[in-house]
Amino acid sequence: MSQSRYKRSERIAAMTSILTNHPNRQFGLGTFSQQLDALKSALSEDLGVVKRTLESLEIGEIHSATGAGGGIRLIPRMPREAQQLFLQQLTEELIKPERILTGGYLYYTDLISSPDMVQSMAEMLAQHLDFKEADMVVTVETKGVPLAFMTARLVNRPLVIVRRTSRVTEGSTISVNYRSGSTGTIQQMVLSRRAIPAGSRVVMIDDFMRGGGTARGMHDLMKEFDARVVGSGVLMATREPRQKRSGPCTPLLYLESVNEETGEVLISPNEALWKE
Amino acid sequence: MSQSRYKRSERIAAMTSILTNHPNRQFGLGTFSQQLDALKSALSEDLGVVKRTLESLEIGEIHSATGAGGGIRLIPRMPREAQQLFLQQLTEELIKPERILTGGYLYYTDLISSPDMVQSMAEMLAQHLDFKEADMVVTVETKGVPLAFMTARLVNRPLVIVRRTSRVTEGSTISVNYRSGSTGTIQQMVLSRRAIPAGSRVVMIDDFMRGGGTARGMHDLMKEFDARVVGSGVLMATREPRQKRSGPCTPLLYLESVNEETGEVLISPNEALWKE
Repeated sequence: MSQSRYKRSERIAAMTSILTNHPNRQFGLGTFSQQLDALKSALSEDLGVVKRTLESLEIGEIHSATGAGGGIRLIPRMPREAQQLFLQQLTEELIKPERILTGGYLYYTDLISSPDMVQSMAEMLAQHLDFKEADMVVTVETKGVPLAFMTARLVNRPLVIVRRTSRVTEGSTISVNYRSGSTGTIQQMVLSRRAIPAGSRVVMIDDFMRGGGTARGMHDLMKEFDARVVGSGVLMATREPRQKRSGPCTPLLYLESVNEETGEVLISPNEALWKE
Repeated sequence: MSQSRYKRSERIAAMTSILTNHPNRQFGLGTFSQQLDALKSALSEDLGVVKRTLESLEIGEIHSATGAGGGIRLIPRMPREAQQLFLQQLTEELIKPERILTGGYLYYTDLISSPDMVQSMAEMLAQHLDFKEADMVVTVETKGVPLAFMTARLVNRPLVIVRRTSRVTEGSTISVNYRSGSTGTIQQMVLSRRAIPAGSRVVMIDDFMRGGGTARGMHDLMKEFDARVVGSGVLMATREPRQKRSGPCTPLLYLESVNEETGEVLISPNEALWKE
């Protein structure tokens, strides 16, 4: 092989961009070797620089696996200080009195559809939940879909969106009924039979949890697929009831209280995130 | 300022990762200067390397703006050959006979929820549609949400998700009725009054378009907000009718025909994408 077309610094720029653009996806050194016309040994050294830098700044990790299924993947990370600052800024935004809706609900649809916000939320969920055993990420339509999708993207797992009504474009479906803790009504969850193979392990991501009724319904639905919920994370959970009907769930924030009369909203970060 | 803690190749890795992780977001040189403890002049040279490399590989562009609102942003790009290969692979997957559902619908929910697939689809939509004038991206729940969100992320605009039913957690809403071309039924679109400021220009992203009824409904809904649809893109549109009721729309693929009896599906790429 002749001298590489690209200099070291150029190869580093190229590989960093490709790896960052596909978080947690395994790339073989051969792919880069071809694309950048460089020896694998040189690329290994280049990747050492990338690894050292991202880890020193705490913004990412490079994992290498050797052998047949081997390759390199990049896992974005968020420094602890950045996480705390982000939750603080998010809280300041969420407690604005004009966000209070009739019934004591909070309007935050704008925040969980904003790319930068969702990126940080998803990075935190991907970092604090355990996806090692998970085959896929599941969520219930609609508000939590961007967050669930971005989390799925960061851990490189497919997303499955459970719907509330049956659609003709999904083929035959399985449905369960559940009682929503937020509204107290009986609701339906519907999922295409094709969506989840038997034996799958899923992590549930949603935007909000009150009593855990939706998550309970998800457990029931997964049973119908011979699948199992192995983890659960939400942007925000109410502090009460402490025992959610669905079992353990990791929220980024706790909603302590909403006072419609005074306009006071109390939200606190989930301190347990940093006690691992 | 003392000698930088980070070497050139390390600064390049750091900046490339941060810029790639936040597509189209403007970063001031000052931010990097602080984080990497380096002079702006050195960073400018580093960014020249990043720019040259990504542009040579056709995987990204670096735009710099000078002045008060100045900064650097990275725009991911997909080489034309990669685009064509991607659409070809996607087509091969889509025409599998087992994807045909009763009524001549195609099952492709798995594909538009898979991170790698959605990433490439979104990169193509971001590249072929004009977002310069757009204030936000809009979509209608549910299947197209991951694609719309990823596109919004790439062009760094907020996403707005229009719902089919009114929800208590959205505050007061505006709704319109429309006739769905896919099912022939009258359906509803609902959006929180807070979601879109008057005067906004939006680009609509969806997974599928048949007659354009949903997109027509979106035009009507936007009018209620004093907003305007300035562009529209979908993963796949039926070839017929050629005149969609909604006006122009850019699909990545055309669905030519589905034959339930023979199991034959015809799909072709939108060749016009490369005739600009």
